[in-house]
Amino acid sequence: MAAPRAIGIGLLGLGVVGSGVARILTERADTYAARVGRALEIRRVLVRDPRKPRPVELPPGMLGTDPEAVLGDPAIALVIEVMGGEQPAYEYLCRALERGKYVVTANKEVMAKHGPELYELAARRGVDILFEASVGGGIPLIAPLQRDLLANEITSMRAIINGTTNYILTRMARDGTDYRAALRQAQQLGYAEPDPTNDVEGMDAAYKLAVLASLGFRMTVRPGDVYREGITRLHPREFRYAAELGYALKLLAIATRDDHRVLARVHPALIPAEEPLAKVDGVNNAVEVVGDLLGRAMFQGQGAGSMPTTSAVVADVIDAAFRIAHGGEGRPAWRADPDAQVCPMSELQTRYYLRLTVPDRAGVLARVTRVLGEQYQISIASIIQKEADETARTAEIVIMTHLASEGAAQAAVKSLEKLDVVRAVGALIRVEGQA
Amino acid sequence: MAAPRAIGIGLLGLGVVGSGVARILTERADTYAARVGRALEIRRVLVRDPRKPRPVELPPGMLGTDPEAVLGDPAIALVIEVMGGEQPAYEYLCRALERGKYVVTANKEVMAKHGPELYELAARRGVDILFEASVGGGIPLIAPLQRDLLANEITSMRAIINGTTNYILTRMARDGTDYRAALRQAQQLGYAEPDPTNDVEGMDAAYKLAVLASLGFRMTVRPGDVYREGITRLHPREFRYAAELGYALKLLAIATRDDHRVLARVHPALIPAEEPLAKVDGVNNAVEVVGDLLGRAMFQGQGAGSMPTTSAVVADVIDAAFRIAHGGEGRPAWRADPDAQVCPMSELQTRYYLRLTVPDRAGVLARVTRVLGEQYQISIASIIQKEADETARTAEIVIMTHLASEGAAQAAVKSLEKLDVVRAVGALIRVEGQA
Repeated sequence: MAAPRAIGIGLLGLGVVGSGVARILTERADTYAARVGRALEIRRVLVRDPRKPRPVELPPGMLGTDPEAVLGDPAIALVIEVMGGEQPAYEYLCRALERGKYVVTANKEVMAKHGPELYELAARRGVDILFEASVGGGIPLIAPLQRDLLANEITSMRAIINGTTNYILTRMARDGTDYRAALRQAQQLGYAEPDPTNDVEGMDAAYKLAVLASLGFRMTVRPGDVYREGITRLHPREFRYAAELGYALKLLAIATRDDHRVLARVHPALIPAEEPLAKVDGVNNAVEVVGDLLGRAMFQGQGAGSMPTTSAVVADVIDAAFRIAHGGEGRPAWRADPDAQVCPMSELQTRYYLRLTVPDRAGVLARVTRVLGEQYQISIASIIQKEADETARTAEIVIMTHLASEGAAQAAVKSLEKLDVVRAVGALIRVEGQA
Repeated sequence: MAAPRAIGIGLLGLGVVGSGVARILTERADTYAARVGRALEIRRVLVRDPRKPRPVELPPGMLGTDPEAVLGDPAIALVIEVMGGEQPAYEYLCRALERGKYVVTANKEVMAKHGPELYELAARRGVDILFEASVGGGIPLIAPLQRDLLANEITSMRAIINGTTNYILTRMARDGTDYRAALRQAQQLGYAEPDPTNDVEGMDAAYKLAVLASLGFRMTVRPGDVYREGITRLHPREFRYAAELGYALKLLAIATRDDHRVLARVHPALIPAEEPLAKVDGVNNAVEVVGDLLGRAMFQGQGAGSMPTTSAVVADVIDAAFRIAHGGEGRPAWRADPDAQVCPMSELQTRYYLRLTVPDRAGVLARVTRVLGEQYQISIASIIQKEADETARTAEIVIMTHLASEGAAQAAVKSLEKLDVVRAVGALIRVEGQA
């Protein structure tokens, strides 16, 4: 009996992840062929420069610069996209799906900006797009959302989903260093890019949150729908005060659904120190999902790196190849909830940590609490007077509020800044404990 | 156009979990029908006593005591087993699979004792057996092992997989109470059974570990292959000393593979306090998996309870029903690694915590270290002399060893117990830090 025909694979991109994927698919060809029931064969690889030396050996002639050589090859049933960036990756993915090829992608930007269009295009063409590697490296997140949590209505997702910023914040918390110093350390270790903007301003986390929220809430959440605040203005003393109050300070990506109203946001937040998320340190990632049946579950691991990402890409490849070999649709299709809508950040209700620098004299607290309480109906859970600066004759006060609306909190900060008894509003940080 | 025919479901058992499953399948019928593409219809429920009042309302006549009414109904394509216990559950599952029905089970005992036979029977009949709920309640574990980690060779699984014992140990660590008092608290809160043997002696954890190891390592690991030590003899001072040394004390279920040699064990262990597993407290469960590509990932959540278990059962039901509706084999079949074998516990290499009560006088340490070092080649990492008992003129010493073999450690304990300078060996606990 002739061996069944191999499943042809096209690879778009041969950088760090692409080389890892090509190497593992080659080295473990026999194992994966046994798991799928047919061999997996890389036929074509799209690169920018075919002569560039690569950490993986592929037969000469397999590499080329013409996308059509991959996308137009009828023997290629499965396209793996590991180029990154919105364009031309998005265009190539559309062309692959249009031609009835399965697609596996690690591209968070494309999935965040165009995920729902790609799901629908894949469904129309009777194929699928798999993107486990786009969020959280090798941590299984996408497939569990698509399968294991299907019995649930998901009500909340809270994530530490950017390793660079979590490393920086962990350093600041442990060493008491300032943002600049911690960033430099992260850069020296290769955890932060020379230009760290995408990470430290929360763009990377916002992309990933858009992917998770679109999938988990069955709606279209674009990166622009995600409220975003980075970590660059966090002062070292916030970590000290947070710890004294029993909190950790993390960059959280949070998406919550209340009935059909969804709020998605990325910002620094205080979390009670005993919560599992508060204990996720260094470059680790973690995603906590709350489902109405499941309760709270957390997925944790290395959110980046060539081999963890390869693990996710190849799992998707095996899944897609298995369906190509054996038929079947795989899993329930994504279908948008027509009633779901994204809310503006001003509707957020949460608790706040507020740090003020004030003159070290009597009567100041009364003025401040009157603005919060009478003018904005923000009720105060606790006030702590921190150290005074003898020379400047100022003191620092840290206020923890009860639940308040974001709109009121922002307006209150503006009013406080105008008070003659407030020298500066040092920080306004949301407090995100388990409900 | 006529609506597509409903998928008939038979339910074996209508206890706490069965009632939850029946209620959720009924209440969310429209949602799940949309996800599957066909309605899901419970047709028959096997119970012991049809007249017993239930927390869920089902049409009269649906409940019955004859298993054949469920297993022999050709309109039932999917059988959900939530009876628990080995027999007659195992027999019913075999009969359902033989007749070409998909099976969803929450039964850890059956899966631990007969999993590989059931996988093979299902494959032979062209159907599948799904058992996400058998381990870790609603936490996605089984499906990620079957899908998301398929690119990896899994080398290690370490789990806190019994909520009862983790609750008891958490209480002992936090409150300094002894085992009896912590067990009573757990019983009062409903976290421990009146007869807690299955939990506190590690049987429940051993079942679950057998399921995980068989699946993750692709081999047959039976509950009897799992080395097992319970928590009933742990002394409160171990928690104090462990904390002082920077460790947490947990009941771990550990399965490791080195080449084709697998070791599976359930016993109390010290874990470095900064590891994620050390921070899993109370009734929570967590499973940490190490894959050669993935690195380390951890899954955490509520390991028991009616609704979390229902979440897992219904996810499996939706998955199976989707395949019944749309065809497709779902995922690569489990296939045994013919070379894999279970090793005896004596081959374990790990580090040990050893607590001895000795006379409070000179020369004792020298005698003890000579036995360990010269007689058994166990080298010592640190020795701490803990408090002395003035009246009894004894002192306690805590020894942390370097890597040693289990065989040597057990033999050394026997030799130490015979020394006239050793009043008692208070504890020998394995130390399980990340390699």
